[in-house]
Amino acid sequence: MRILGIDPGYGIVGYGIIEGGYQPKMIDYGVISTPKELTLPERLEIIFSSIETLIASYNPEVIAIEELFYFRNQTTIIPVAEARGVIILACKKNNIPIFEYTPLQIKQALTGIGRADKSQVQFMVKTVLGLESIPKPDDAADALAVAICHAQINPNLNNNMV
Amino acid sequence: MRILGIDPGYGIVGYGIIEGGYQPKMIDYGVISTPKELTLPERLEIIFSSIETLIASYNPEVIAIEELFYFRNQTTIIPVAEARGVIILACKKNNIPIFEYTPLQIKQALTGIGRADKSQVQFMVKTVLGLESIPKPDDAADALAVAICHAQINPNLNNNMV
Repeated sequence: MRILGIDPGYGIVGYGIIEGGYQPKMIDYGVISTPKELTLPERLEIIFSSIETLIASYNPEVIAIEELFYFRNQTTIIPVAEARGVIILACKKNNIPIFEYTPLQIKQALTGIGRADKSQVQFMVKTVLGLESIPKPDDAADALAVAICHAQINPNLNNNMV
Repeated sequence: MRILGIDPGYGIVGYGIIEGGYQPKMIDYGVISTPKELTLPERLEIIFSSIETLIASYNPEVIAIEELFYFRNQTTIIPVAEARGVIILACKKNNIPIFEYTPLQIKQALTGIGRADKSQVQFMVKTVLGLESIPKPDDAADALAVAICHAQINPNLNNNMV
């Protein structure tokens, strides 16, 4: 099952595509960047069309995206949520089911520890996917982490569909 | 100049269309409602396509939308911002310039008082547009208020383009 993992953001959206299963395989990862000089509508349009391009290029069967909480990064929560709305719309318009996971669920799925720190999660992304180094930047590693989280949760027990 | 005013929301998006000028005229107003039973992606898609339909039906030259602040309605700020992202995308895809206004600017423009209460703003919406009663529901009145705010700000001094 091909999974597109997304770390939502406004200036930078991380993405990671994996083939799920007993031994998940990395297909690709990267970031969508939106230049600061552009307006909000322009930046949202770039994010929307880039997600559509990723879907067309990689044909994911499902999208896994990180959930937002209003108490984290309060100063940027509004543009990040606006971007996340546009990302979800792009997935919906392409009829791809979307699952969302909390940071706690992602840490738990990758490391077994809900309070694991960022470096432990990144180390597990590298290990699970059999990579030589930790994917950069962090946004891409975070996107791979949410994709792996989706792959590791038993589909019969998965209540995270959005 | 035809203005589409939008009061962003998730369950209810208010809209109001006016013809700006010395004596603004009401063209139409109403709300887009998204049923609670639907998923987030379905609700965002309804909002996106409803905004596109409004644009196609009324041909506004500009969109005026209320700005969000994270300290107001914190529990719903994330879905409301997600909806606002989708609304802005719909306007951008139709090449309509977008202007945003703070609640303070809207109150100031309509009543001359930044701390005016909701009922004073609604009374001025009715008065300025020469209506027989205050438009209902509140979301529609709020959308007409932001449209009137845009109409009343001198275009040469307007720095509110998004």
